[in-house]
Amino acid sequence: TLSISDKVDAADKGEYRHFMLKEIFEQPTVIRNTLAGRIGKDKILEQAFGAEAKLILDKTEHVQIVACGTSYHSGLVARYWLEEIAGIPCSVEVASEFRYRKFVVPKNSLFVTISQSGETADTLAALRLAKTLGYASSLAICNVAQSSLVRESDLALMTEAGTEIGVASTKAFTTQLVALLLVTIALGRRHGLTANAEATMVEALQQLPELIEQTLTLDETIKQSSEHFAEKNHSLFLGRGAQYPVAMEGALKLKEISYIHAEAYPAGELKHGPLALVDADMPIVAVAPNNELLEKLKSNLEEVAARGGELFVFADVDSGLQTGPGIISIQVPSVPAVIEPIIYTIPLQLLSYHVAVLKGTDVDQPRNLAKSVTVE
Amino acid sequence: TLSISDKVDAADKGEYRHFMLKEIFEQPTVIRNTLAGRIGKDKILEQAFGAEAKLILDKTEHVQIVACGTSYHSGLVARYWLEEIAGIPCSVEVASEFRYRKFVVPKNSLFVTISQSGETADTLAALRLAKTLGYASSLAICNVAQSSLVRESDLALMTEAGTEIGVASTKAFTTQLVALLLVTIALGRRHGLTANAEATMVEALQQLPELIEQTLTLDETIKQSSEHFAEKNHSLFLGRGAQYPVAMEGALKLKEISYIHAEAYPAGELKHGPLALVDADMPIVAVAPNNELLEKLKSNLEEVAARGGELFVFADVDSGLQTGPGIISIQVPSVPAVIEPIIYTIPLQLLSYHVAVLKGTDVDQPRNLAKSVTVE
Repeated sequence: TLSISDKVDAADKGEYRHFMLKEIFEQPTVIRNTLAGRIGKDKILEQAFGAEAKLILDKTEHVQIVACGTSYHSGLVARYWLEEIAGIPCSVEVASEFRYRKFVVPKNSLFVTISQSGETADTLAALRLAKTLGYASSLAICNVAQSSLVRESDLALMTEAGTEIGVASTKAFTTQLVALLLVTIALGRRHGLTANAEATMVEALQQLPELIEQTLTLDETIKQSSEHFAEKNHSLFLGRGAQYPVAMEGALKLKEISYIHAEAYPAGELKHGPLALVDADMPIVAVAPNNELLEKLKSNLEEVAARGGELFVFADVDSGLQTGPGIISIQVPSVPAVIEPIIYTIPLQLLSYHVAVLKGTDVDQPRNLAKSVTVE
Repeated sequence: TLSISDKVDAADKGEYRHFMLKEIFEQPTVIRNTLAGRIGKDKILEQAFGAEAKLILDKTEHVQIVACGTSYHSGLVARYWLEEIAGIPCSVEVASEFRYRKFVVPKNSLFVTISQSGETADTLAALRLAKTLGYASSLAICNVAQSSLVRESDLALMTEAGTEIGVASTKAFTTQLVALLLVTIALGRRHGLTANAEATMVEALQQLPELIEQTLTLDETIKQSSEHFAEKNHSLFLGRGAQYPVAMEGALKLKEISYIHAEAYPAGELKHGPLALVDADMPIVAVAPNNELLEKLKSNLEEVAARGGELFVFADVDSGLQTGPGIISIQVPSVPAVIEPIIYTIPLQLLSYHVAVLKGTDVDQPRNLAKSVTVE
């Protein structure tokens, strides 16, 4: 018999078999909510960041990001944005490592924490430590307004992901990325980002929910491809540039819910070791937007194919990467470069979901894991 | 019949079955050679670094390290040293990623490349790029004096590892660490490192060859433990702090020559995902020196044991970690903290070697890999 909470849960899932799938499909909506009131026609609306934002952003010359797990991956993507778009040096560190390391605090450094729950023990402890170390200010990217992290930070930019039930984070991750891109643009304004460049990025953000909806239509295709993973125990995920942390997040999802040992590598490192692992039993997943790294990535993929590795490529429709012997290419819509990391996250979420369903694991409650890690 | 080159090779291996094993056992000697003339009774002999060294080190306020594969791991260890001992901010990046990224060059930044051969294509290209970007100076840590990397750098600190034949790098790695520690001490002198602290580290370096010899006596014990890995396809390697890159290097060795999918994690991140993978089929390797992180690491290991994971711990004799149900503890000599990353590398090299021999792979020439990656 169902308990009351089971009944409520079942109702909340609506048409979806699992919360995780529901939350994946909620992403267009929750990203719209995260953008609401924060972007205008051709610029971000910085006043919506809160009264203290201006002073804090004005003085920021360096960003230190600290987070755990999935939130750490969103920080790694943000590093590419902050350095490329805002020209601001950025370091990203796992909270449990940051806490026990001696280092130098750069001048006017903004200490950014990222956590869905705002109660992640190591991240919270890192914030408390940072306050004793001379960081200029602190900013929390968080999904729970009443959380300790939000209360104890100088500034908070809330993600509007709504309640996330699935232990494997999906919509929290992509809304974190949206919030971090807004912060990047705000800092960019102070470091030479032109109004034109800002307008281009804001336009990309406006299109983002609709582009995610388009990407979600790949669901059925990805479900079919997932059958190739059902009997596998390993996988490598490859990306280059800002797609490397996207590959890391894709690998983490597959680990968490399908118990397949998936590991991400920057594609250029393959030849320095992991290529020894590649054989017909190790499917290789790659994310291949149509950017300046595409040709390099293609040559990395050829090395894999030459060693008998089966390739699953999520590739821009214009990338020229087609399904053929040893390669399944799933075509992703062409999107503006700045939002590529968000878009390419979506098919990797769907892949891990469908593989886990085929494997028969407890998708929403994978073994050994808790939703919020509130102990060290 | 043996060809002439086979005969030469066989002769060169001496009493050892493989070059890799010979090279592991050469480490006390080649580290002595790398230290020779560069340390005195209680201080480093900086003049041995070359005529240009003083000026370059005097002005260095930031270090950017770029490398690939194993050399990248030595750079990651050096980051802990540089920030903790010399108080100098340090960034480390994979060469193939560094080349294709926009970023901010800090003031007075020393660009450090690390490569055994000095011909690694991505690393060399990164150096050439760096020269156009405004780095203050360049330093190569390299094993081949006539290499392109040495010729094109402002300064070179040679490792004296001798010829390394095994594709999986061993003695090149530990001599790189020694060279990087010498550079760290030289920079530390300029940033508040006291003569007493320097003397303590130099004493540790003087003891290092002898301590490695002691650690190598674990060979037979490790060989026996390696049997537990022969039927496994996966492994997680755990470390915290400067032992995290040591765990990464240990995992890479196992990947390269045994084709076991080994992945390293900072132990505090286990709960944020990879713990889902842990079951009786996934042995967990941990490096556990007796330092301030030991108690934290122990609690991470308890989580693993509670999920049925089989633990292989390389632990300080005073760590209190003993062999028992679900845990094999191999006791490593107590050594000065600064050289722990070098010492703990040794048993991980031996573990990967013996597992590969049991698996019957081509230890010195693993599939798909080349000794020097001279193409991108």
